[in-house]
This record gives sequence, C-alpha cells and structure tokens, in this order.
Amino acid sequence: MTLDLSLLPDGGVPWLAASGEHADIVLSSRIRFARNVAGYAFTARARDGERLRVLAQVREAVPRVPSLVGAALLRLDEMTTIERQLLHERHLVSKELAALEGATEARSGAAVLVSSAAAVMVNEEDHLRLQVFRSGFDIGGAFQAATKLDRELGGEVPYAFHHEFGFLTSCPTNTGTGMRASVLIHLPGLVLTQEIAKVLQGLQQMGLTYRGLYGEGSEVVGNFFQISNQTTMGRSEDELADQLTRVVRRVIEQEEEARRVLLRDAGYIIEDKLWRAYGTLRHARSLPADEAMNLLSGVRLAVGLQLLSGLSVYTLNKLLIFSQSAHLSLEAGRTLTESEANLARARHVRQVLASEAGLADR
Amino acid sequence: MTLDLSLLPDGGVPWLAASGEHADIVLSSRIRFARNVAGYAFTARARDGERLRVLAQVREAVPRVPSLVGAALLRLDEMTTIERQLLHERHLVSKELAALEGATEARSGAAVLVSSAAAVMVNEEDHLRLQVFRSGFDIGGAFQAATKLDRELGGEVPYAFHHEFGFLTSCPTNTGTGMRASVLIHLPGLVLTQEIAKVLQGLQQMGLTYRGLYGEGSEVVGNFFQISNQTTMGRSEDELADQLTRVVRRVIEQEEEARRVLLRDAGYIIEDKLWRAYGTLRHARSLPADEAMNLLSGVRLAVGLQLLSGLSVYTLNKLLIFSQSAHLSLEAGRTLTESEANLARARHVRQVLASEAGLADR
Repeated sequence: MTLDLSLLPDGGVPWLAASGEHADIVLSSRIRFARNVAGYAFTARARDGERLRVLAQVREAVPRVPSLVGAALLRLDEMTTIERQLLHERHLVSKELAALEGATEARSGAAVLVSSAAAVMVNEEDHLRLQVFRSGFDIGGAFQAATKLDRELGGEVPYAFHHEFGFLTSCPTNTGTGMRASVLIHLPGLVLTQEIAKVLQGLQQMGLTYRGLYGEGSEVVGNFFQISNQTTMGRSEDELADQLTRVVRRVIEQEEEARRVLLRDAGYIIEDKLWRAYGTLRHARSLPADEAMNLLSGVRLAVGLQLLSGLSVYTLNKLLIFSQSAHLSLEAGRTLTESEANLARARHVRQVLASEAGLADR
Repeated sequence: MTLDLSLLPDGGVPWLAASGEHADIVLSSRIRFARNVAGYAFTARARDGERLRVLAQVREAVPRVPSLVGAALLRLDEMTTIERQLLHERHLVSKELAALEGATEARSGAAVLVSSAAAVMVNEEDHLRLQVFRSGFDIGGAFQAATKLDRELGGEVPYAFHHEFGFLTSCPTNTGTGMRASVLIHLPGLVLTQEIAKVLQGLQQMGLTYRGLYGEGSEVVGNFFQISNQTTMGRSEDELADQLTRVVRRVIEQEEEARRVLLRDAGYIIEDKLWRAYGTLRHARSLPADEAMNLLSGVRLAVGLQLLSGLSVYTLNKLLIFSQSAHLSLEAGRTLTESEANLARARHVRQVLASEAGLADR
C-alpha cells in the first residue's frame, strides 16, 4: 500500500476531536458545496482527458487558496481499493468517488484535497465537492469556513453558474446553492424511547432528511443519523444553515429529554444494558462491524449519562472510525477477510479501552 | 435472621475447595445413605412427637460418633424460609427438608447435622440421610468416609433393617443399600459439540441417571449435571461406587475429547463466546440466576481450556453457590425481591471477579 496517512493534516479527521458544542450527541457538523468548472462536461460525461484537465486546473490553483494551504492531494485513481475505502471511512470521500461498488478502480482524475480546514473531492458526481467539517454542533462555523473556501477557490477556478438557476450541478436536486448542510448525530435516547419515528417524520415536514452514518444509501447503524437539508434551490445558503441549526437544536433537546425519561423510568435496566455493551467491547475476541457500532453506541450513551466514567468521547469517536475494516487492513499491512477483520477489530477495541482504563489488555 | 453461618465447619461446603482430581470438570463427589430408626413410623407418617423423639435420639448419640465431632445441629423447624433456602443452596439439605415448595415452614423435627466430614439430614423422607461430599472426582474417598459414618452412627442408633430386603426406606426405590452415589459434573464441551444426548443415553443403559445442579426435579442449567446410580437393590455398595467411578471416568474422557475438538474446530469462536461471558459477568449491573449460571459455566470452560488465566476454579465454585438468592438476601440482611437479587448478584459477581483480577470494581 502506498497511502501515507501521516501526510494528512490531523489525519483528515480533526472533527473527531469532540471539542465542539454538544459533542457527546453531535459528532460533527458538515457543509458541502457542489461546484463545477465552466467549460467541461460534467464528470460522468467527461472523457478521461477532460477530468485530468479539471484536476490539473484545480491543483494549479491550490497555492493561491488560503483555505487549502498545506493540503495533501490524494489521487484515488492511483490507490488500491483498501486505501480508497479508508478515505471513505474517514468521511473524506464519498462511496462514489472511492468507487467502492461495482467498479474495481476509481475513474481517472478522481482525487481529494485534504487540508486541516477542508476536504475537496475532485471529479466526484460534480467536478468539485467542497466539504468543511467541524467537531460537535457548529453548523455556523462550518458554514463560514466553507463560504470562505468557496469564495477563495471560486476566485481561481471559473465555476459553472447560471444567473437564474444558480450553480449548475450534475444532478438537478443540487442546482441552486449546491449546498448541503448536515450533522452526524447520535440519538439512542429517542430510539430507546421509541420517539424516533415521530422526530424523523417532523424533519421531513421541514424539508430535511436523514441518512445513516455514511450518507446516501447507508443504513442507520448504532443510532447514528446524518440529518441534512433536502432542497437546495429557492432558498439562500444562510437560510438553509439557520434552519438546520434551529431544527437540530430542537432535536438535541428532545434527545436530552428522552435520556432523562430513560434514566427516570428504566435507570437500572439502561445501566445494565450499557455496562454489558462495555463488557462485550472490553473482552470479546471477535467483533463484526455492525455489532461494534451498536455496542459503541451503547457505551457512548453511558458516557453521556455519566453512568460510565474515565472514557472520553474523543476516544469513542476514534474507535468508531478507526475500527473499520479498511483501517484494520491498513494496520495489518494486507487486506483482511471479514472474519480476520472481526478478530482485528476486537483486538483494537480491547486495547484502546484497556489503555483508556489504565489496564493491560485481558 | 438467626442462622449463624460461622457455626458451620468450613461453611458446610469444604467440597468447594476444587482440590480433588479433575476438579475443573467434577465439582464434587457425594455418597448418601438413607436410614431409618427402628421403632418409629417413617417421617411422612410420623406424628410431630415421634419426629422430635427421632431427633432427640440422634442428637444424644452425636458425641459418641467420631465423624460428627464438632457438628453443628441446625433446626430447620426454627428457621425462616431464606435460611432454609440458604442451606439448600449449599447442598446441605434437600428441597423437601427445607420445605421450599408448597409448605411455608419445615415440619417439626426437621434438622441437619453439619460436621466438616458430613451432613446428616434428620426427618427428611427417611429419618436419616447421611451425606458425605468430597471436592473433585473422589467417589472412593466419599464412600469410605460415608461407610465409616454409617457404621459409627449405626452403632449408636438402631437402624430399621430387614435380613432379606436390606435397609428399609420410605420409598421402595431406596430400599436395600439405601445408597446413592453421585457426582456434580460440568459438561459444556459435550453440550457444545452436541454429543451430550448420546452420553446421557449411555448412562441410562448402565443403570445410572442424571439430574440438574440441585438433584431430583431440578433443571439442568449451566451445563452442570448430577450423575448418580438409579437402582440401590441387588448390588453391593462397593459395586455401585465402583461402577459410578468407572462410568464417570469415561465421561470425563469424553468431555476432555469434546473440548479438544472444540478448540481445534472452532477455537476462536469458542474463545470469543467465553470471553464475552466473562465480560458480561465482569460488568453487568443485573444478573438473573439462570443467566449467571450459564455465564459462569462459560468462564469455567475458559479456565479449563486455559483461555483465561488468573481466575481459580475455587473462586468459580464459590460464585456458583454464594451468588444464589438466599445467600444474597442473607448478606443484605433482608429478603430481596427477584429484581433486587439480580442487582445484588451482579454486584457480588463483579466484586469477586474484580478482586480476583486485582482491580477495583468498575
């Protein structure tokens, strides 16, 4: 493998830091803008040469874009599947750009620019997907940084723009602002109190939508939801960001209320359930990915409810991302089979939890 | 509560010591003789006064019976239900003598004599049930000690005996030698490899039978079986003891072979399963009795397979007995409800395992 993770500023995942507001409930806030470079066909219709020219043009602009200072350029079209999957596990690239389904390699020109402030996908569904992540609940902060990046990059690269429709995108649902604002949020309280269906229904009525941990097409596992705006046309970027902020603030309150109800009505049942999750993570010898996610969800709730101490949300965030298959394969230096990955995952989780508790792995 | 456990030599449970042969598989070996005192009606038909006279006669003989030196006399007819249940949990008295089903108190004259060598139930189904336990696989040792006790006590108290039928007992199935030889044996390997049905069938063809952890009418939980002789008439005591020894030796070999097969064919699955059992015992906040038994069974197997170190069979034996409801109630100083007992059981198990691992409970 050739991917050198040390080249990535903060590993590309400063948003794991659990440093923002409500970081035990909201893992991260994200703004992405879909942009295309004027004068080229959209990625899916572009020929190899066109995509490579798009990439060259962006690359050439980077030194003049302050938000991308120190950015690493990672060519997905030169990587193995495991390496591309690892970048996807870190939320730096989409499943599509990483070509994880159907295709065996990424399309030529597929790349991602990773700075400590942002990750820019090149030759995804659109030529450019500008992404800014923030730890915790900070849509406003992400929005400001993304707007700055957009302005800077747009000053160097001519965007495809229509005075009536706004930014032009490959898929019409993105046309207009091309913006998607989202939060990655952990809602075990609402799931356990069975309030979640009502809450999700409420989101949809307000033009928002939800997905699983890995966005479009991914299942909800471990009570992690990605909540985002559905529409991008007919509203300003500010409005979209503000609305999401307002709605998510309300969802956080509902989650906190659900947790209070749980503790009040089923305290010892919950406590038992969550400690069992910890016990399994702490001692299992084989952990399938979905089970690990669900157990980590339980332990995260236990930490949030202060039933379990001496374990940081930061560590839990890292476990969530770094215990995934491609990470384990990269650590092992070869592609692991599923059952090998389950063993490696259990070992990784055990060691991290033991070390956090100041113990030897046992 | 009035039961003072410190009066019991070795707590009445020296057989927990895990000191005998094959102690990781065979918890204990037991010999019991059913005897009745000549001149009185069998217990079930005796009037209160008769039973009290039987008790008085036995009590009066104790000082002249070397095997009962230092014995504590415990009157079940003066005890609370929890206290009687505790003696049952220690295998010192039968469910019947402890009157744990149907009746609310023990029949008058119901008692047990507990020395470090033996436990003699008085006014059970028969006037006397002489029991000798040995730790591990030691039917021969138990048989010698029981024979000695029987001879000593029979020299002081006139047994009901018929020259043709042998010792007379309340239930005809016991008549003859009045002897039951049994082992309490842990067979998780045979259960997991699904060989157990065949093995149990084999036992029955040889005139042996099996029961659960608490003998007649108790269910098999945690892969603990009581294997004993079925018939008592028409064979000498020696023959019965020898036959059980031979058969159990073969069952131990089969269990060991099953464990080898498990490790060979499903090593990491088994290792994972058993470590998860440990993790749950180590961290759960509520443990129902049956679940605790099953998890302890798993951990016991893990210790036997040397997958888990730093945990003694002795500790596991104690957990098996001392984490039961009456023990937990006695420790709490009041009768616990089932859900209170589940909490107390989890706490007890956690503390013992943490202390064994040299850790604070967490």
